[in-house]
Amino acid sequence: MAKRSDELDSVFVALADPTRRAVLRHLGGGPATVGELARPHPMTLPSFMKHVRTLEACGLIRTAKAGRVRTCTLDRRRLAVVDDWLAEQRRVWEARTDRLERLVTNQEDQ
Amino acid sequence: MAKRSDELDSVFVALADPTRRAVLRHLGGGPATVGELARPHPMTLPSFMKHVRTLEACGLIRTAKAGRVRTCTLDRRRLAVVDDWLAEQRRVWEARTDRLERLVTNQEDQ
Repeated sequence: MAKRSDELDSVFVALADPTRRAVLRHLGGGPATVGELARPHPMTLPSFMKHVRTLEACGLIRTAKAGRVRTCTLDRRRLAVVDDWLAEQRRVWEARTDRLERLVTNQEDQ
Repeated sequence: MAKRSDELDSVFVALADPTRRAVLRHLGGGPATVGELARPHPMTLPSFMKHVRTLEACGLIRTAKAGRVRTCTLDRRRLAVVDDWLAEQRRVWEARTDRLERLVTNQEDQ
């Protein structure tokens, strides 16, 4: 549970930045080199690499270097922790709605 | 688009903390006072209030004070921006899968 909580922390931190979200979106279309990913973003390569490292550290992307070229690949499974967390929230809400409905039905019966 | 991006930034920052996620989960079961919400968390009330303020600032919760008691309510609509963002990612992936499938089918036809 603590492990999953740490995973959620690092994934949500990674998602809380427009550059990193744009990189994930780009990689949704297929693997890309750091050069290709960096092109649309008005920042230095070292600054851009920090974003790449943040995404890699939390497991949202994998990177591999061949010669001078580093290629990045999306790991969709990592985003599943966000889906799972949202689904868990929904279960809590629905349990509440069910309780409220039972309460109203019981009052109507009386 | 820039507005939505700022919204996503602040919502993801808010979600990147186990105390704040626990508060959202608690409020999923219905409104609660700050005192009730703070009880399970081993921290000072001012520290806890910072978390409440972060959740309120990004619109994930609303708070209202009556006398000395502040009551918090979840605003589920705010979490919808996360759902929307995930759905957008999925559309990008699916478009890619469709392209790959067409490519494979065309090669098989040749």
